[in-house]
Parts: sequence; C-alpha cells; structure tokens
Amino acid sequence: MQHALNTVAVVGAGLVGSGWALVFARGGASVRLFDASESIRAGALARLRTMLEDMRGAGLVEAVEPVLARITVCATLAEAVGDADYIQESVLERVEVKQAACADIDAAMRDDAIVGSSSSGIPASAFTAGLPKRGRFLVAHPVNPPHLVPLVELVPAPWTDPAIIPALRAAMEGWGQAPIEVKGEIEGFILNRLQGALLNEAWALYEAGLASAADIDRTVSQGLGLRWAFMGPFETIDLNAPGGIADYSARLAPLYHNIALSRRDPKPWSQEAIRSAEAELRETLPADRLQARTDWRNRRLMALVAHLRAQPK
Amino acid sequence: MQHALNTVAVVGAGLVGSGWALVFARGGASVRLFDASESIRAGALARLRTMLEDMRGAGLVEAVEPVLARITVCATLAEAVGDADYIQESVLERVEVKQAACADIDAAMRDDAIVGSSSSGIPASAFTAGLPKRGRFLVAHPVNPPHLVPLVELVPAPWTDPAIIPALRAAMEGWGQAPIEVKGEIEGFILNRLQGALLNEAWALYEAGLASAADIDRTVSQGLGLRWAFMGPFETIDLNAPGGIADYSARLAPLYHNIALSRRDPKPWSQEAIRSAEAELRETLPADRLQARTDWRNRRLMALVAHLRAQPK
Repeated sequence: MQHALNTVAVVGAGLVGSGWALVFARGGASVRLFDASESIRAGALARLRTMLEDMRGAGLVEAVEPVLARITVCATLAEAVGDADYIQESVLERVEVKQAACADIDAAMRDDAIVGSSSSGIPASAFTAGLPKRGRFLVAHPVNPPHLVPLVELVPAPWTDPAIIPALRAAMEGWGQAPIEVKGEIEGFILNRLQGALLNEAWALYEAGLASAADIDRTVSQGLGLRWAFMGPFETIDLNAPGGIADYSARLAPLYHNIALSRRDPKPWSQEAIRSAEAELRETLPADRLQARTDWRNRRLMALVAHLRAQPK
Repeated sequence: MQHALNTVAVVGAGLVGSGWALVFARGGASVRLFDASESIRAGALARLRTMLEDMRGAGLVEAVEPVLARITVCATLAEAVGDADYIQESVLERVEVKQAACADIDAAMRDDAIVGSSSSGIPASAFTAGLPKRGRFLVAHPVNPPHLVPLVELVPAPWTDPAIIPALRAAMEGWGQAPIEVKGEIEGFILNRLQGALLNEAWALYEAGLASAADIDRTVSQGLGLRWAFMGPFETIDLNAPGGIADYSARLAPLYHNIALSRRDPKPWSQEAIRSAEAELRETLPADRLQARTDWRNRRLMALVAHLRAQPK
C-alpha cells in the first residue's frame, strides 16, 4: 500500500518498542531507534537479531540481515526524531513519563511529522495538551507483541488533525499492521473494553463456582476462539443464522439482554477468586515456568500468523 | 482415552446431529442415526460422505469409507437407541419438541445408558422432569459444527446422577472433543455468556459511534482472537504480566471494574444499530453470498483445526 512515511523513529526500545522497530523495518522503512538507557541501546541490535531469527524460523520474514540493516540505534532522541516522517513513542506507561517524552519529541520533530503513542490506556489528551505541535499527536496502541499481532488502535485527542488518521491508517496497512479508528477517547479504547467484558463475565462465573478456571479457558481456546482467530464477533453471528445478523439478533438478543441484566451490579474482581484461580493455574504452570510458557506462546503466535497469512481471504 | 461408550445413537440428523455422527464415528464408535423425517434419513449418508470428503481434504481424517462404515441409519427411534451406551439428542431447539423426543428416548433406552442433549439454551430440567430415567439425562451442548469445533458443555440437571459427568467427560475426550463441566443450570451456560458479554460491549460501542462494525470485527480477528485460538482468557492474562495473573489483576482490575460500572444500565440491542450494522456488513457480503461465506468459514475452520493439532502443547 502506498504511503509517504518512509523514515520512522521509535522512542523507547523495551519489549513494545523493539517489536515496533521490527514492524517498520520489515515494512521497508528506515528506522531510528532511541532509548534513554545506554545499556538498552547497547543490547538492542542483538535482541532484534534474535527476534528476527525466530521470525525467519516461522516463515514470517525471508531474511534477517536486510531487515536489520534498516535499523539504526541513535544516541540522542533529537538524532532519532529529527528527520522522521513518523515517530512511535513507546516509553513507560506513566503519564508523567509520557508527558516528558512527548515534550522532547515535540521540540525535536519536524512540523509535519506524525507521532503515535503506544499508550494502552492513557489518552493522548492527558500528555499532549500543552505541546506546540499537539495536533500531530495521537495514540497508536498495539497489541503485545506488535510484530506478531497486527491490530493497532488509532485514537485521536480532540485536537488531533483529522487528516492524520487516513494517512497513518494507510501507512500501518503498508507496514502489514491492521489499524482501526477509535472515534473518541473512551476508557480502555476498543480492544481492552471487549477483552474486559469477557474477563468480567469469566471472573463472575468462576467466583460463583460454575466452572473451573481451566474449563473457562477451554471454552474460549477450544470453542469461541477458533472462529475469532479469523472473523470478528459481528461476522461470526452474521454466519450463525440463515438470514444473517438481523435474523440472529431477532432470535438471541433477548438471551443476551438477560445476561447483561444479571450483571447490573458489578463488583471488582475478588481478591479471593484471584488467589484461587492463581493457585489453580500454578498447578499446571509453576511460577518459574512463566517465562518459558511466554516463549511458547510467542512461537505458537508466529506459527498461527504464518498459517493465517497462507489462507484464502 | 479409555471409556466404555462404544455404541452411540444420534437422534435428529440435521446440521448438528450430522456433525455429531461424524464425531462419534471418527472416534471409533458404532453409530446409529435416526431422524423422524424420511427424506432426511434417505439423504443422510450422502451428506455425511460429502462432509467427510471435505475433512479428508483438510487432513482431518485419513480415509472416508472406514468412518462412514461405522454409521447406520435406523428407520425407528427404538432401533437406534435400544442398544446404545450413549444417546445424543439433537432435535429442534423447542421445549415441547425436546420433551417429546426425550420421552421416546426414555421409553426405548437401556436403564444404564446416558443421554446428552444438544440444547444450546434450554436446561435439561425443563424437558426431563417427568421421565422415569431422568437421572441419566443432561445437556451436552456442542459448538456448531461439532465435528470442527471441539468444545462441549456438560450441564447436569439437579437430578442428574453425578457419576455420569466423569464418564461422559472421558468418553468425549476419547472421541476427540473438549468437554467442560458447568456446575449449575445458568442461563446461556458458559460459552454463550462469554460470547454475550463481548457482543453486548461490541453493540454498545457500535451504537455510540465509537467504531465501525468492520473495525470492531478487526479488533477481534486481528487482535484478541489470535491468542484466544489456543489459550483461554485466564491463561492469556497470566502471561501478560511478569508476575502472572495476580500481578496482572493488581494492575488492571480497576480499569475493568470501571468498564463494568459504565454498563450498569444495559439496553436490549437496538433495532436501529442492528439495521445499520447489517447494512454495513451487506456492503462487503451481499445476502446471496451468506451460504458461500459459511462454506468458506468451514474450510477456514478445518484448516485452522488441522494447524492447531500439529502444534506442540
């Protein structure tokens, strides 16, 4: 897909920033990567090489070196963002840290650059209000890890220049991501609200003793999640009644309304339920194997993404 | 997995019953298939053969004929269920139809047989209360189509013999399904409550104009759904914070509680929103292509299931 964002800066080279650097470089951009920590900067290329080798193993990139060659680690923020068409801010998720980073970016960037923040929950209006170039900033929230899960939520602040959205959407598509537009700064954006609705129900069922944590997990991993790996919730119900989504809704909306009515008095997730679910999960996965299981998850995600890409649309 | 249910009757040979017949026959059981309609009985084996050929094409069965040879179409319900160790009732989802079918099954079955109903919403207590052998009945709710999506919800009535659950659970595992146990007749069971919670939030976001239906679908199909195709919601959050599920909950439970508080006054799905989403969906998928798209979904599901089976656990 044609777009004009060829030089990209990534500010913050942690897990999320590293994933972003791979997304942009894999997509053909010239990438300048900066982190305030000297030791993170020093180790960045070696970590990116390992991640790229895993991706090559799963068939997600053809070769490691050409992608890596497009990434330059910069010693200063100004050097990274000065020439950039697009800047992805990926610093710590704390409002004062985001404010400081965005003020530095604002001072060093070109007037016509675009800045997307990886913020997963803080709206752009909370850390760009006072910036001279605040019209160029918005949230571009990825899923972790961004180089494996394509979704990106574009969430403008009230003052974000509206012309930025279609430009960044086209660029994200061009880099192989799947951008969506959130039309307002709603808490949790779209992805975490959908995840939260399902999690809230899962916790309520678990707390009521209606199923084990393993059985609730299985309901998704062996049931609901199979269709949702390649179709959204609306398309799923559109194909689940002979007459499509309206037919399905006529049959089942009353059931789903009853379910909502039964949850009108939501409590915070119970500490006791959390301890109990944790104990159940630790029986299958001891705490010292969490990292190994996370690596397994990433390998499974890579294999799944490779499978999904090979399927007819 | 070892189990003692070798002869299985399927009552009702529609879409769900046909899928069940394939599950049991593929799993090695001797299957007796009955439908009250003579024309459905007459066409049943030809339809099953086509379904099995599709499955062979996707690598989900090795050969068609050995599976088909284990299925006998019976002319009467008594002939189908008389010798059966397990009976899967898959008649129309209407309480009076279920009542009549279960009364007939009760009269013809062995005292020690087990009867699972494919009911997706009606609890077993609503159609087995007056039966002499009611202790042998429960709900065994599959996802459609059962031969492609493994999840099965086992939901006992208050009078179901508790010894049935582990026996049927082991048998379902042996046939290649993924059974879960629901400990009480809650409306929507587990699967539809989880799906409903996500759908209710999706409709609320759509109705508020916060995203298009296509973008909400994308949030799941390119984001949340990738992990959920092989991990449940609890395991997903367990791997999304360094300290596991308790660490994740400490960080994010307040956000999710706020989301729940914002939905304390649930309205039924709005007719206007349904019409509007339908119009948006029909732009990409005209009504006359719904069946073709459903066939595409089934091919995609088959390919996904084959992929998932080949992955390391």
